[in-house]
Amino acid sequence: MAQIIADRRDVDFVLHEQLAVENLCRHERFADFNRKTVDLVISEARNLAVKEMLPALKAGDEEGCTFENGRVAVPEAFHRIYALFREGEWIAMSDDPRWGGQGMPTTVSLAAKNYFHGANFPFVLTILLAHGAGKLVEKFGTDRQKALYLKKMYSGEWGGTMLLTEPEAGSDVGALTTTAVRNDDGTYSITGNKIFISSGEHDLAENIIHPVLARIEGAPAGTAGISLFLVPRIWVHDDGSLGEPNDIVCTGIEEKMGIHGSPTCSMTLGAKGRCRGTLLGQENKGMRAMFVMMNEARLDVGMQALGCASASYLNALNYARERVQGRDLQAPGKDAPGVPIIQHPDVRRMLLGMKAVTEGCRSLLFYIGWCEDMIRVSDDAAEKARYQGLIDVLIPIAKGYVTDRAFEVCSQGVQIYGGYGYTREYPQEQYLRDCKITHIYEGTNGIQAMDLLGRKLGLNNGRAFGDLTAEIRKTLDAAGNHPDLAELAGETAAACTQLTETARHIGLMAGSERMTTAFAHAYGFMEVTGDVVMAWMLLWRALVAAEKRREGVKSKDASFYEGQIAGARFFIRTVLPVSLGRMAVILRGDGIAVEIPDDAFAGK
Amino acid sequence: MAQIIADRRDVDFVLHEQLAVENLCRHERFADFNRKTVDLVISEARNLAVKEMLPALKAGDEEGCTFENGRVAVPEAFHRIYALFREGEWIAMSDDPRWGGQGMPTTVSLAAKNYFHGANFPFVLTILLAHGAGKLVEKFGTDRQKALYLKKMYSGEWGGTMLLTEPEAGSDVGALTTTAVRNDDGTYSITGNKIFISSGEHDLAENIIHPVLARIEGAPAGTAGISLFLVPRIWVHDDGSLGEPNDIVCTGIEEKMGIHGSPTCSMTLGAKGRCRGTLLGQENKGMRAMFVMMNEARLDVGMQALGCASASYLNALNYARERVQGRDLQAPGKDAPGVPIIQHPDVRRMLLGMKAVTEGCRSLLFYIGWCEDMIRVSDDAAEKARYQGLIDVLIPIAKGYVTDRAFEVCSQGVQIYGGYGYTREYPQEQYLRDCKITHIYEGTNGIQAMDLLGRKLGLNNGRAFGDLTAEIRKTLDAAGNHPDLAELAGETAAACTQLTETARHIGLMAGSERMTTAFAHAYGFMEVTGDVVMAWMLLWRALVAAEKRREGVKSKDASFYEGQIAGARFFIRTVLPVSLGRMAVILRGDGIAVEIPDDAFAGK
Repeated sequence: MAQIIADRRDVDFVLHEQLAVENLCRHERFADFNRKTVDLVISEARNLAVKEMLPALKAGDEEGCTFENGRVAVPEAFHRIYALFREGEWIAMSDDPRWGGQGMPTTVSLAAKNYFHGANFPFVLTILLAHGAGKLVEKFGTDRQKALYLKKMYSGEWGGTMLLTEPEAGSDVGALTTTAVRNDDGTYSITGNKIFISSGEHDLAENIIHPVLARIEGAPAGTAGISLFLVPRIWVHDDGSLGEPNDIVCTGIEEKMGIHGSPTCSMTLGAKGRCRGTLLGQENKGMRAMFVMMNEARLDVGMQALGCASASYLNALNYARERVQGRDLQAPGKDAPGVPIIQHPDVRRMLLGMKAVTEGCRSLLFYIGWCEDMIRVSDDAAEKARYQGLIDVLIPIAKGYVTDRAFEVCSQGVQIYGGYGYTREYPQEQYLRDCKITHIYEGTNGIQAMDLLGRKLGLNNGRAFGDLTAEIRKTLDAAGNHPDLAELAGETAAACTQLTETARHIGLMAGSERMTTAFAHAYGFMEVTGDVVMAWMLLWRALVAAEKRREGVKSKDASFYEGQIAGARFFIRTVLPVSLGRMAVILRGDGIAVEIPDDAFAGK
Repeated sequence: MAQIIADRRDVDFVLHEQLAVENLCRHERFADFNRKTVDLVISEARNLAVKEMLPALKAGDEEGCTFENGRVAVPEAFHRIYALFREGEWIAMSDDPRWGGQGMPTTVSLAAKNYFHGANFPFVLTILLAHGAGKLVEKFGTDRQKALYLKKMYSGEWGGTMLLTEPEAGSDVGALTTTAVRNDDGTYSITGNKIFISSGEHDLAENIIHPVLARIEGAPAGTAGISLFLVPRIWVHDDGSLGEPNDIVCTGIEEKMGIHGSPTCSMTLGAKGRCRGTLLGQENKGMRAMFVMMNEARLDVGMQALGCASASYLNALNYARERVQGRDLQAPGKDAPGVPIIQHPDVRRMLLGMKAVTEGCRSLLFYIGWCEDMIRVSDDAAEKARYQGLIDVLIPIAKGYVTDRAFEVCSQGVQIYGGYGYTREYPQEQYLRDCKITHIYEGTNGIQAMDLLGRKLGLNNGRAFGDLTAEIRKTLDAAGNHPDLAELAGETAAACTQLTETARHIGLMAGSERMTTAFAHAYGFMEVTGDVVMAWMLLWRALVAAEKRREGVKSKDASFYEGQIAGARFFIRTVLPVSLGRMAVILRGDGIAVEIPDDAFAGK
């Protein structure tokens, strides 16, 4: 069978050869895992994805969700997958077994997610939301809240969401107007309207626990006055039994470009004045809680985009190997036989670019999971802080850069199919439509760029960004000593040096009176940082491959390792020179985007 | 009222200030036109687009086309627009009045099309196809064929199509298998299956005339044995009366990512052995006829993409002016008032980029129309040949480069709306979905890149490409003498010099044993050529604006002209440095995309 959704050989390569998860398993924290159990987890995830989730991808798109009288029905086929997810305990893969989690390394759970997202991420969204809400309960809940909700959320018996956005408060969360008033019994009465709530209402679980951002009466304006509440769809009594339906209703769902299987709900709280919730965490500290969850949520969005890209790439590759069209460029005569389109140079260019992006993004995202695991197994505070800094710097890349590149991969995935790619007969156009949402939610990619420049570049006095380039340098130094890679390492090192200079320059500009101009170049800065990170990941892969080749390689692996070196070479020689051009743009720092008068864009 | 679909001031700027269409009107050929009549045509086109076509855009998307028993129904709302198109005689705007055309300069007809395509290009496709089929009859038909069909096609009484693609013959037209056998009465019996036929069947006209590519029995293999036939849906007797339905039927329509209002048909010819057609042009010269039509068809595709980009940009601009979200970056306190998002540097960056691309593409496409007009009014063979060479070189840019950039504009057009952009409540996501087809049909963008490198770069011994850079130099020299533009002109000149060197290099490589490597860089070459052409167009605009400012400008025009200089500055300082990086990639000419073994992409 052709590789589909994700190249298993490559997933294993990242887990075992690049990141060596077995070393993680030597720590007590992950003592239940070893090479064999990890492989089993991935095989099971792959089976579930290929056999059950992927067949429901198109059905979910075409059937979509329906809304009637406040109730939302998800696509019929999703019910079976949801039951299988619960049965297989896939919802809380890397969480504490005390609450029903599987306790596996995050790195491994990301590999499973690569398959799940590539097979059907509109379905998985419901799971992710439930898990994220559970995580909030785990991190900020009282013992009573945890006892009441957590196991049921991590097991999928109940769902979960995140009620954040309001019509006038999207990117600007601080503008929200939903209010909470404390009742005598310690609960809060909540009133407000929320929009764009993924899985705000659905028929997969008997209850849904809604974390809700709201402002307690009299609290400060802006983000400093926002608190977090738990609002169950159906009230939960102290003994765990269900009570009356709460006064929170879905008033409609969005018609969207894609992810039709995921219900995007408008929610009204307290229309009858009877919406009750309990405070989660401390008063006015809601945003802090959100920030804690943000890294996980944004990493998940990158994973969704990777899933689309990874599946679209392998589909395109398989198609290009089968589809005969045109003749060899060097033997174009009318009598020459037709060739599979993978023989055409421009198709190869697209495929190799798609491969490099897909694989580089896979390494980057799994690496972020690995950093989280390292924090979990480390006893050293400085080391923990260093890994946390790396994660913090890389998250805007994992979300903003990865989703941009993944969308381009999906667009080329349509392109390689030609006219067929534009039809609904093949999954390519759906991956492109679905993937577009990843540019927008959990903070638009423009917000990611501002986060990188405004918060992350200067984090810990710039040490986090410096740690990142130091990590990159380690790989470059090692690759520089390898005969097959020395030249590529040198080219990447030059780009890394230029990135450091660019970072210094834009950082200074952001702190000067030219601040707005700096932020007009924030997006470019995210792109060039991402490019260098990708080159690092690909060169790291190539280094592992080159070492294996030096040790002697089984014939079935030879092509795979050769592909690693090829991917690095393609990226470093095709993308990095362009990235140097982008760095030159930032260093020049032209300010026309902020200087142009509003009227000069076009007349009103 | 806010500018929608296309900025009228900008459309007028290109027509009258950049290209001076009034000078065209001094020629006898266009003596019926002057500033006033041209303005009237654009105003009428804009009215029709805004008031009638745009309101049917979403309806067409949601209702789509239906297929039942071989008949296709287009969206209901399209019938009224079709009647208005016929009534206003919009189908053959720049064609010979002898056949019912309006005889206007092509430049002017493109300005009208900018509005039509931006308002509803899935509808306009049916018109374009009918016109293109009519053009084939006009150019290659016998007097009898012209008399029978042409006026009815140009008036919209009958429709028209183009039956080219087959399941195994897409990009490789020469592989087609539809056959034609000559009958005793001089007609041909045709048998075959065609797919992806836009407007192959619809209910807008009582008859449809199908030009069909087929191979006469015994003809050579490949493109050299392809002939063109006219196959009417209903047979037309010599006296013009309609006879029996022909044996050509639609067997189904495609479900697609977008352009739902345009029926994409599978057609079966001769299932009952009774499909008749007449030869159009000479035997085995069908491909020649196709090539004659190709420039017009590809320019139209660029125009469709421009329409989407132009509308998406203005929508985003208007939205950004209204939508309040977040605070001024330099006054981020919680008490600071919210600002319209156009105040945020990253939004301005996107908008200015969208503006530059939209306006640069508008100039480029209109310029190609203007070159066609210059051929029509010129008596000088050398001058005609020079303009034809410019057109031939620019067509792959107009199709491949313009549609790529337009798709990016549409993607940013979604982005600026945030979550709203992903919903069907706003037109942004439809423009993105619709625009994607422009990468694919009339020759994929990869095919365009191969056309530029393989055919156009060496055209007339390289003179056509040289004429292009010479034209660019003229503008650069003029701008170099202008104090406001000298620096920008210098930067563009450096890029132009580097483009010439890049062209020389890749041209030599394409003629060497490294040919396949050269073609692996063909796409990059199309991109850098397009970038320099865009910089040229934008600098030309800026030059016109700077001259006007020197002469003294009415206050209402001051912002517009300032916007022209801003657009050029943004593009030249943000895109051209990146383009220089792309040129470096081509000059380096790494061959990994062709060298990588097939197995190294991923296991099978």
